[in-house]
Amino acid sequence: MKDFHYIEIANRIEAMINNDTYPLGEKLPSLRAVSEHFKVSVGTSLKAYSLLIDKGLLASREKSGYVPLRKSTGHTEQPVATSAAPAIREVNVSRIISKMPVDAGPHPPGFISFFNASLETHMIPFNAVRRSLQKASRDLTGTHLQYESTMGNLLLREQIARLSFYWNGSLSANDILVTNGTLEALSLSLRAVTSPGDAVVVESPCYYGILQCLEQLKLKVIELPCDPEDGINIRQLEEIVDTYDIAACLFISNFNNPNGVILSDEKKKWIAELAWKRQLPVIEDDVYGELYFGPVRPTTIKTYDKHGWVMLCASFSKTVASGFRIGWCAPGRFIEKVAQLKATTNVATASVLQLSLADLLTSGTYQRHLRKLRPLVHKQVLLTTQYIEQYFPSGVRISQPEGGMVLWVELPKQVDALKLQKLALEHHINIAPGPLFSSTGGYRNYIRISCNKHWNRQVEQAVRKLGNLVRSLC
Amino acid sequence: MKDFHYIEIANRIEAMINNDTYPLGEKLPSLRAVSEHFKVSVGTSLKAYSLLIDKGLLASREKSGYVPLRKSTGHTEQPVATSAAPAIREVNVSRIISKMPVDAGPHPPGFISFFNASLETHMIPFNAVRRSLQKASRDLTGTHLQYESTMGNLLLREQIARLSFYWNGSLSANDILVTNGTLEALSLSLRAVTSPGDAVVVESPCYYGILQCLEQLKLKVIELPCDPEDGINIRQLEEIVDTYDIAACLFISNFNNPNGVILSDEKKKWIAELAWKRQLPVIEDDVYGELYFGPVRPTTIKTYDKHGWVMLCASFSKTVASGFRIGWCAPGRFIEKVAQLKATTNVATASVLQLSLADLLTSGTYQRHLRKLRPLVHKQVLLTTQYIEQYFPSGVRISQPEGGMVLWVELPKQVDALKLQKLALEHHINIAPGPLFSSTGGYRNYIRISCNKHWNRQVEQAVRKLGNLVRSLC
Repeated sequence: MKDFHYIEIANRIEAMINNDTYPLGEKLPSLRAVSEHFKVSVGTSLKAYSLLIDKGLLASREKSGYVPLRKSTGHTEQPVATSAAPAIREVNVSRIISKMPVDAGPHPPGFISFFNASLETHMIPFNAVRRSLQKASRDLTGTHLQYESTMGNLLLREQIARLSFYWNGSLSANDILVTNGTLEALSLSLRAVTSPGDAVVVESPCYYGILQCLEQLKLKVIELPCDPEDGINIRQLEEIVDTYDIAACLFISNFNNPNGVILSDEKKKWIAELAWKRQLPVIEDDVYGELYFGPVRPTTIKTYDKHGWVMLCASFSKTVASGFRIGWCAPGRFIEKVAQLKATTNVATASVLQLSLADLLTSGTYQRHLRKLRPLVHKQVLLTTQYIEQYFPSGVRISQPEGGMVLWVELPKQVDALKLQKLALEHHINIAPGPLFSSTGGYRNYIRISCNKHWNRQVEQAVRKLGNLVRSLC
Repeated sequence: MKDFHYIEIANRIEAMINNDTYPLGEKLPSLRAVSEHFKVSVGTSLKAYSLLIDKGLLASREKSGYVPLRKSTGHTEQPVATSAAPAIREVNVSRIISKMPVDAGPHPPGFISFFNASLETHMIPFNAVRRSLQKASRDLTGTHLQYESTMGNLLLREQIARLSFYWNGSLSANDILVTNGTLEALSLSLRAVTSPGDAVVVESPCYYGILQCLEQLKLKVIELPCDPEDGINIRQLEEIVDTYDIAACLFISNFNNPNGVILSDEKKKWIAELAWKRQLPVIEDDVYGELYFGPVRPTTIKTYDKHGWVMLCASFSKTVASGFRIGWCAPGRFIEKVAQLKATTNVATASVLQLSLADLLTSGTYQRHLRKLRPLVHKQVLLTTQYIEQYFPSGVRISQPEGGMVLWVELPKQVDALKLQKLALEHHINIAPGPLFSSTGGYRNYIRISCNKHWNRQVEQAVRKLGNLVRSLC
């Protein structure tokens, strides 16, 4: 047995990934199986797999063993960041989005929507949710049919507080206010620290839902370019904060929607410190934080928040069920103001669904479900990437997110994403065009693709059709 | 048998009501029983009861027969309307309310709160709600765990539309948007037609929840005096609309909270026409409309709205369960804007509770429950009135609502309601002090008492204690 074997073995495995013998996201042979097959030591097999991990082609995953992440034949590069200079701008996304079929409700059969980044039914722990709902209705008391506390159900808040352990936080139930989804948490946080006409710093590209929320609250934005590999530039952020009168920042720190980037721990820490030093509220949207593909839960900006200037917002919409409309907010020093706004907007969130969710968390079902959901989402992201590489014209750049469930795709310069969407809709396919993700008028040739489909022939055909439409516009 | 008998009979019955032989809200002997007892014809008994109805002491009620409404020995007069001249004012209710224990959640045992006008457990159709929730979780599909349509569940909207028949309306499901309770419906409606700094006309006294909502939306108010017997003066409203720059009106047309007044059909019609003529949005809060004590469901301003300027808001919080947080809005010509705001505030309302409610409505359970709830609430209102008359010092004026579940009480001039509340809290009793219901600083000697208690010795003692505290402040 000689050492050079491991490279040969690695090459063989690489070839089998490239020709789909082992599809992306599926389990590769175990170390023992490789050793037996090639008649080498387990150490040699390990070296082969390690080489492929170093090349970024594989991941080692608890229980599933080794899993292919991408083909070495792919030509993907990351999309480039915007070059528009940051400035205070009016938001006007509603004008664009109002003409699109974007209702997040169910789609007619035969329609393939890559528009909404929501959990499709196969990603929802349906039976567990139903059981928890039945339990909640069985255990119901009259009190649960009266107003819930404005802060939210205590059982649920205790469970949410415990989750902060995983991102190195230390929230208590009293730090948390339950909301109707992440968007309500963001909306209440924004209302708590801004007035109409104020400017808010966001990442560019920025989730259109956030831009719409800002627009409806009559706020302005400063879009900070967000590099698909590194995220925002903290020097540039500091400059902006020094130059302009800023009311708040709003960042998706983990797996930015749409470009998937994750802020490093250093940047998170630096932002938390800036918030404190400049007395500048930072609203953090961590709705994708639990959907990480790597070995550990990423931290948050809130992790490093010692003085309560960070307002963390999240929900169970991307993990359990968007239809539950249960989110939460840990608004630090602004908690009383946020509670006052909640009380005068809709009094409190309904008890029943909070009880059901508290049960899913307490019983451990939530964590068990996430252990299955994360590799499933990862696989969907990898497969979608692979088919975009296969069917779209060369020169297309695709984000390589380490979590979340969307891909940010840069098309050839001459492709108009709004035109592409129109054509796609004629073929019963929807995508989110780039111009939705900015108030600058940029991202004309970008699209966001949601990776929430149960992969089948029909979905593959939809990606293929999209690729053909892109070609027709080149 | 002589005709004069019927007056004697009426006098006998009146005396038995005054001495509590037949308590308020309880069933009186049937016509047949009266005839047999006094050995008179049924026609004579009918005349006796008719006389008492004319004197306002009785009501004739389906299935329950005749029911005593009030004692003839009572000395109640209605509270007087405010005399503050209408002007544009900043709202500053939060400053007062922030110091009070007002959480709408459950209270500790032994604490008697007359503060919140919410359904207590004995008023909630608990078993029916539980059954409907169990049915909803049994019938659940994956679709129900995805985002509901922003407009709300279609089954529920169809049922809400059918209810409009009872107030002579003709809504269709497409006219209706489901919200998280009435307050969200009001908040979205206000955001749709106003900008911060705008002035909104409201009734005076005005429900503090509405004032707080206006305050948090940075709106100003013009308070229009609302007479406890006649409601607002429409000439005065027209004058205000002509004098000031008004963005919207917001009225509780049926059983105003707190003073219980109902606007006449003529006034409702006139307001609907004014809205159209002046292109002035009128937001109508009809949350108490279903809790009428009379024989028929009152109309709404929306009943007379031909051009979509009336935005009707209501919920199931005062009829089924406040903890459901399901309300709705029929915003007429502003429906697209309201939907846009809903979509960018919390996307949609959760499906499960909408399904459960749709089931309660479809099965007829809702109407059956209301037929029991209305006389129950009426009885609670009558009993509370009676005990306030009995235990409070003379000179106290009490509203005489024909629906809803609150009483507006004018105390002797020298009594400070905020001081009274402080003293009451020391005795584990809470009330809503008058200054909460205005931005004028008026209603210093008024309180609002909720009539949502299952009447027992402890509640009676609490009213008695309150009466003693009022005396101590005289």
